[in-house]
Amino acid sequence: MRSTHDAFHVAVPTHDLDEAVRFYVFGLGAKLARRYDDRVTFDFFGDQLVCHLDPAAVAVEPVEYPRHFGVTFARAEDFDRLLQLVEHRKLRVLSGPATRFEGTAEQHRTVFLVDPSNNVLEFKQYDDPRLQY
Amino acid sequence: MRSTHDAFHVAVPTHDLDEAVRFYVFGLGAKLARRYDDRVTFDFFGDQLVCHLDPAAVAVEPVEYPRHFGVTFARAEDFDRLLQLVEHRKLRVLSGPATRFEGTAEQHRTVFLVDPSNNVLEFKQYDDPRLQY
Amino acid sequence: MRSTHDAFHVAVPTHDLDEAVRFYVFGLGAKLARRYDDRVTFDFFGDQLVCHLDPAAVAVEPVEYPRHFGVTFARAEDFDRLLQLVEHRKLRVLSGPATRFEGTAEQHRTVFLVDPSNNVLEFKQYDDPRLQY
Amino acid sequence: MRSTHDAFHVAVPTHDLDEAVRFYVFGLGAKLARRYDDRVTFDFFGDQLVCHLDPAAVAVEPVEYPRHFGVTFARAEDFDRLLQLVEHRKLRVLSGPATRFEGTAEQHRTVFLVDPSNNVLEFKQYDDPRLQY
Amino acid sequence: MRSTHDAFHVAVPTHDLDEAVRFYVFGLGAKLARRYDDRVTFDFFGDQLVCHLDPAAVAVEPVEYPRHFGVTFARAEDFDRLLQLVEHRKLRVLSGPATRFEGTAEQHRTVFLVDPSNNVLEFKQYDDPRLQY
Amino acid sequence: MRSTHDAFHVAVPTHDLDEAVRFYVFGLGAKLARRYDDRVTFDFFGDQLVCHLDPAAVAVEPVEYPRHFGVTFARAEDFDRLLQLVEHRKLRVLSGPATRFEGTAEQHRTVFLVDPSNNVLEFKQYDDPRLQY
Amino acid sequence: MRSTHDAFHVAVPTHDLDEAVRFYVFGLGAKLARRYDDRVTFDFFGDQLVCHLDPAAVAVEPVEYPRHFGVTFARAEDFDRLLQLVEHRKLRVLSGPATRFEGTAEQHRTVFLVDPSNNVLEFKQYDDPRLQY
Amino acid sequence: MRSTHDAFHVAVPTHDLDEAVRFYVFGLGAKLARRYDDRVTFDFFGDQLVCHLDPAAVAVEPVEYPRHFGVTFARAEDFDRLLQLVEHRKLRVLSGPATRFEGTAEQHRTVFLVDPSNNVLEFKQYDDPRLQY
Repeated sequence: MRSTHDAFHVAVPTHDLDEAVRFYVFGLGAKLARRYDDRVTFDFFGDQLVCHLDPAAVAVEPVEYPRHFGVTFARAEDFDRLLQLVEHRKLRVLSGPATRFEGTAEQHRTVFLVDPSNNVLEFKQYDDPRLQY
Repeated sequence: MRSTHDAFHVAVPTHDLDEAVRFYVFGLGAKLARRYDDRVTFDFFGDQLVCHLDPAAVAVEPVEYPRHFGVTFARAEDFDRLLQLVEHRKLRVLSGPATRFEGTAEQHRTVFLVDPSNNVLEFKQYDDPRLQY
Repeated sequence: MRSTHDAFHVAVPTHDLDEAVRFYVFGLGAKLARRYDDRVTFDFFGDQLVCHLDPAAVAVEPVEYPRHFGVTFARAEDFDRLLQLVEHRKLRVLSGPATRFEGTAEQHRTVFLVDPSNNVLEFKQYDDPRLQY
Repeated sequence: MRSTHDAFHVAVPTHDLDEAVRFYVFGLGAKLARRYDDRVTFDFFGDQLVCHLDPAAVAVEPVEYPRHFGVTFARAEDFDRLLQLVEHRKLRVLSGPATRFEGTAEQHRTVFLVDPSNNVLEFKQYDDPRLQY
Repeated sequence: MRSTHDAFHVAVPTHDLDEAVRFYVFGLGAKLARRYDDRVTFDFFGDQLVCHLDPAAVAVEPVEYPRHFGVTFARAEDFDRLLQLVEHRKLRVLSGPATRFEGTAEQHRTVFLVDPSNNVLEFKQYDDPRLQY
Repeated sequence: MRSTHDAFHVAVPTHDLDEAVRFYVFGLGAKLARRYDDRVTFDFFGDQLVCHLDPAAVAVEPVEYPRHFGVTFARAEDFDRLLQLVEHRKLRVLSGPATRFEGTAEQHRTVFLVDPSNNVLEFKQYDDPRLQY
Repeated sequence: MRSTHDAFHVAVPTHDLDEAVRFYVFGLGAKLARRYDDRVTFDFFGDQLVCHLDPAAVAVEPVEYPRHFGVTFARAEDFDRLLQLVEHRKLRVLSGPATRFEGTAEQHRTVFLVDPSNNVLEFKQYDDPRLQY
Repeated sequence: MRSTHDAFHVAVPTHDLDEAVRFYVFGLGAKLARRYDDRVTFDFFGDQLVCHLDPAAVAVEPVEYPRHFGVTFARAEDFDRLLQLVEHRKLRVLSGPATRFEGTAEQHRTVFLVDPSNNVLEFKQYDDPRLQY
């Protein structure tokens, strides 16, 4: 279990701040916290995401591994709601939804999305939330 | 504020799983959750960090921006404890500790570390925790 | 998510303090916290509502937009209970219950009530509580 | 004490959505949640604020009573941080900070702000948080 | 909602400390916290109950009103568990279980028990937990 | 530790419902929840207090033991605030504030108040909150 | 109810630190926190388990009573998940799963496991979680 | 961090149930939950301790390692309170209080007690609570 008061944060490059806002706020339902000339920050599922304007660092193609970030939901209904949001707002899916490690204790559902700057996001939900780490 | 039950997760490349364990568990005080042939997973300050064995994806040099991840502490004493841990265990500091956005509402302390595979970590603590997003 | 210890507060005009108590305490189930000659304060679903005695400021007719206040419930059963309370105690309904933004990610149920001084209240419940902001 | 999962919400008129975003997000540190042609919604200190585009309903002059909304902080340092934010970002103060009901059990500090559409906000902090209702 | 850290407490007379322990600990499942020559204290559903040895103050007959104390459960299953405990351990029931205020917003289930010193306990559970005050 | 969602409740007699409201709401800062012809209910520090109109059951003189009820505060400042409230609002003190069990592990501060119907209230605060049961 | 911030801890002997890690981390899903030459520490279901390298103190045969340790789950589904984990990972079961104290208020399910150093673990789940002490 | 609802439990032998109650309840401030002919159970700092009547299994001499159990406090004042309790009630100290791992990140205070059946208890408090596992 994690603290409610601290925040994880992750920073990724973007080729365009407006596109980042469009995807994260009006797409994924994150909240816009602060905006500067060279970056924009979000309240992303309760943690902080920063998109730095740095077109040179943007990946040419989205690749699932090794770099990605996202949220693991403790409850199945929250994963389902994420899938519904993806469908309603036609967010770009890289792969999935799929079940991984099937038939093992760490079985979980997963879906990979892509943001407009080819950053890869993964959302997961484990049958046994204790094994989500 | 974030949920205590869901977990953020971030995945990064590593050139060596044992080195990753040494740095994250015996250095930063994360906890080893699971280990496979091609990856190791950690309970990293209550969230999940995955190090994928992928030497080709490891950065040649650590660079602060745009890609990094870490924790923003709500309380000053938790940032101080992190600094003490860094000193006790002689973790590699990329820059800082320093104060950023000084004299503004979003003033905060920050320190950048590097893991053995040149992944960059940032720890922060804002004067006003409400602005940590 | 919000803090449990701070309180939102909203202040509205009333033409009669006794009527306000009758509606908010014996109608909506708020709790009377303090009463002065010119105002009465309530614990309204855990936040603070203040009714100031100011007949001149009372609206001639209740209008849904733009001014209203209320509670968004995270769980469907709490919205249902509010509807039952409205029915049991025959509180005045301005419109609804209805479903808004149907077929979108932000779909939610809503009902508008009116207090005896034509202040408008809205109660809501989103299919996806993450989108309640 | 209030629930962490439900949200209070309040809706007010604005003469300009961009101005509202500028004041609430880049001024008060609220977070932009959703934006439509006729309204913008915020995560305002953990609760929901909606600004409806409705210039005709905007008040000619800001008046402290009876209509206003805001947050009552349980801890003195959070009120102090709000005052610092107001100073750093030069937000418009209508009156205060001042101490009200001095020498009584319900003594509290208060400050009134104004948004660009003459909506009035009040922030408070009681010596005895139990009396904040 | 109430704080988790403070404790309500109630003190009642008993004609016999051992009998009090037998009823409250081995009957109702309270926990024995402290025992003195003239009193015994219990962790009673998370709050404090004190039984003072004072046979003269013990009521001749148990009467439901006006003096009694007990717990109001937020969830129906906790009330059901209490009823099962009463049955399993054959605790003395004064009246009920019954439904009170039927068909109104404050409808609730209730059961009255008696301790060996004729102190009356009431356990309740409201359809709408918000109205349990 | 106790649950936040359940509520303790205690019922006592009163000779006059208005007097009860005056003392508990405008004196002690409890909140009026419901009022009937024969009883009034309060949110009393997060738990439920019911005053039943039953003049015959009212005690002739207030006596500290064995019957009383009240709150044990986990933190010293909350006990201090209660004492300040008592002073500001000139509530009737039966005895104390005093320190009991001095020099032992269960040392605590205590004050006894009386309501207008001779019901006795005790507020306490232990040096070691773990021993408050 | 217990605090979230303190931790229970239990220390037991092991004949082999690697075996202990294999059983507790890769078997039971505990997390490796620290490792020294003579001991290894785990985050075991949120509490601390320490295995001291002390082959002489290891029991010759596992015996259920009197020495064992484990977790009592408040919810049935968490006990079921533990059973599933045991099956998936073929952990050694000493006895059970079984139901104890059947037909009484303290009825509960229980299963006994053995670690590689003959330390005995018991996991339980009570029909009435209030009686889990 | 651990769950508030589940409970750790540990079972140890005792040569005498009354002695166990005397030490754990009237000494250490645990609470007596249940008592049978062959065992007694306690709410021990929020977790469950069971003392099984099994004189043959009682250790001849108390030894600090490897078998012991206890609580690690997150806050220094709770460790201090435990030390005060030990002094007030003259509980038997096996060693300490002492500081271990001094000058390292995992520096902590520790004290070892002994119960009447030679079971060893350890209480600890880490400078950095994150390293308490």
